[in-house]
Amino acid sequence: MRVYLDNNATTMVDPQVVEAMLPFFSDVFGNPNSLHKFGTASHPALRTALNQVYTALNAADEDDIVFTSCATEANNWVLKSVWIDHILNGDKNHIVTTEVEHPAILSTCKFLEEQGVKVTYLPVNEEGIVEAHTVKGFITEKTALVSVMWASNETGMIFPIKEIGEICKAKGVLFHSDAVQAVGKIPVDLQDVHVDFLSMSAHKFHGPKGIGALYIKNSQPLTPLFHGGDQMGGRRSGTLNVAGIVGMGKALELATTDIETKMASIRAKRDRLEDAILELPDTFVVGKREHRTPNTILVSIRGVEGEGMLWDLNNGQIGASTGSACASEDLEANSVMLAIGADNELAHTGIRLSLSRFTTDAEIDYAIGHFTKAVGRLRAISSSYAKVKPTPGGEVQECELHHHH
Amino acid sequence: MRVYLDNNATTMVDPQVVEAMLPFFSDVFGNPNSLHKFGTASHPALRTALNQVYTALNAADEDDIVFTSCATEANNWVLKSVWIDHILNGDKNHIVTTEVEHPAILSTCKFLEEQGVKVTYLPVNEEGIVEAHTVKGFITEKTALVSVMWASNETGMIFPIKEIGEICKAKGVLFHSDAVQAVGKIPVDLQDVHVDFLSMSAHKFHGPKGIGALYIKNSQPLTPLFHGGDQMGGRRSGTLNVAGIVGMGKALELATTDIETKMASIRAKRDRLEDAILELPDTFVVGKREHRTPNTILVSIRGVEGEGMLWDLNNGQIGASTGSACASEDLEANSVMLAIGADNELAHTGIRLSLSRFTTDAEIDYAIGHFTKAVGRLRAISSSYAKVKPTPGGEVQECELHHHH
Repeated sequence: MRVYLDNNATTMVDPQVVEAMLPFFSDVFGNPNSLHKFGTASHPALRTALNQVYTALNAADEDDIVFTSCATEANNWVLKSVWIDHILNGDKNHIVTTEVEHPAILSTCKFLEEQGVKVTYLPVNEEGIVEAHTVKGFITEKTALVSVMWASNETGMIFPIKEIGEICKAKGVLFHSDAVQAVGKIPVDLQDVHVDFLSMSAHKFHGPKGIGALYIKNSQPLTPLFHGGDQMGGRRSGTLNVAGIVGMGKALELATTDIETKMASIRAKRDRLEDAILELPDTFVVGKREHRTPNTILVSIRGVEGEGMLWDLNNGQIGASTGSACASEDLEANSVMLAIGADNELAHTGIRLSLSRFTTDAEIDYAIGHFTKAVGRLRAISSSYAKVKPTPGGEVQECELHHHH
Repeated sequence: MRVYLDNNATTMVDPQVVEAMLPFFSDVFGNPNSLHKFGTASHPALRTALNQVYTALNAADEDDIVFTSCATEANNWVLKSVWIDHILNGDKNHIVTTEVEHPAILSTCKFLEEQGVKVTYLPVNEEGIVEAHTVKGFITEKTALVSVMWASNETGMIFPIKEIGEICKAKGVLFHSDAVQAVGKIPVDLQDVHVDFLSMSAHKFHGPKGIGALYIKNSQPLTPLFHGGDQMGGRRSGTLNVAGIVGMGKALELATTDIETKMASIRAKRDRLEDAILELPDTFVVGKREHRTPNTILVSIRGVEGEGMLWDLNNGQIGASTGSACASEDLEANSVMLAIGADNELAHTGIRLSLSRFTTDAEIDYAIGHFTKAVGRLRAISSSYAKVKPTPGGEVQECELHHHH
């Protein structure tokens, strides 16, 4: 058995999505911008895909949904174009974001700081989220943009996007949300929540890699990141990735149809896995489960290095991660755990387990069994765990993390 | 029979390419940046694809080849990052390009002009190319970049990239070439030609849409267009489009293996089609055929509106274009024909026919038959053609375009 528990890094493309994409490689292969039948033959499928995305997000007709190559593109687009439009060519100089954003936001902000932009990285609370009132206090008259993730890739924690949106609207400040870990996982209703820009990525909800989108409220102006042949109404040039767009639309439709049922099923498996892990001594999970996307657990296993655990899980054909796949080659401490106040040693013990609708009960059973044994194996050889191990009559030292057990 | 003669707009994905891509949707679906087997399972295929591109271009180990989502991205990246690195944060203020570049270059240059950059749009000669000595005269000590296409999307004319590269090298100015219409169609040897940056796109050589690359000589610095998770050594962040990369590598290998034989076969069909069209009175082709990529014809049929011709061809299941697909929705005059001095009426008569290695002799026979009849039909109802029609003893008026007939 192989068990994939790294669905926040990427997901398996749903075979129904592949099937929907296949005609657009070698059969309906024309350029949609061409006037002949080879090109126009793709139009019905493109319209369907666009409708699928509008429907899934409950976007309005007057909003724009612009396909991009990924959420990293969408995030770079918003931040850099707000810089160009409102800072380089305007009277603003400030962007507000959080210290726990994805690297696509944080690295872009570092770049913008090098260009003279002032960036505020909002601190998070002990659950790893930014509270709405915190945002309010940092918006100034020079603030061009607030960018806050909808849900954390590391912890699954859901941010108070509705409240932050209201604050931004009231202050007249543009609001962007990187919703990569929310779209397709939890309801995202753009009539209920005020966001100006929203980034998403198909490969996080069983669509293909290489396709994402940016939602733009009321089709408001935003300098393009890609200038060129004026595809997508001039908002994002470049030959349309027809197969990718078709796949994204189909994947989002599949993910969001009857989403509450899908969430309940994933949550039940997640909770069962989480309960089993929390049965083990000195294990901690970041964030209350009811505040999280239903598929995610960030667990800390005292005395067990995250990389050692990953290695052991990998030997058991289980895929997990220590945090963002985008930073996983670095073997660094989990940045969100550091942000919420964990010490460096504890932050190196984080393991992220993320399920999908393809995760089975049998896989969860297998994962529980392997995980439990792995913790035993690794603690037996751990020098650091021996130090904190409870001795008869002694006391377990206080943990900095919210302890669910 | 349907005949696709718009391969400069996009190409059919080679079924062998689709086959190579398929495992990377639902089987080997992991994120290559993940440390577990689901992620690392993609590494051999990614290495193969990268090797295929290095080999096809004869790139050196010390060069970088960075996958992008398309050539529009690669072009925007070079121009905007040179702006940021050498103009915003440097002492240069000038970019040299040509008046016949693809919109991905021209629109980006217009944007940069709005940001205060000076841009020189070099004029072309009667064949629609920029001569090397012309470039030399416009480079100043404030010039940050020269950007010249390798081959024209509209005419197929091949530019003197080697000579322009030598000039840029001697002057110490960065040189970029949009090689979208060259890579996979004609030999591109980056040991023979000095270019700092080279853009390419897989869907122009029977690879998938949504994937391209930028070649960067000696891995020299260039601010990323996508900041984020530091994929591809930090040069272009965003989850790797594994299937797309695998498809691009395979497609480029297929296109460039024994390229001379493939070129000869395509050229023979192209020349036969061109000869047949030039048998018709008052038809003109832009650029000497030996100066062009072997697959392209830009023909002008006096008295026949390009759009009318496209419509007639389309009814006969033949796909062609009036020029760049990226501008084809505009029904504008062919911009290259205007640039080489055609009057507006003549520039509206341009039809671009572009073949591929999948074009068959039977398709060429069919196209010749349909094209010939279409010219007769459309001239019979043309008011403008009647005016220039040769009368007995009269003279055909001189044409501004090079006349091959």
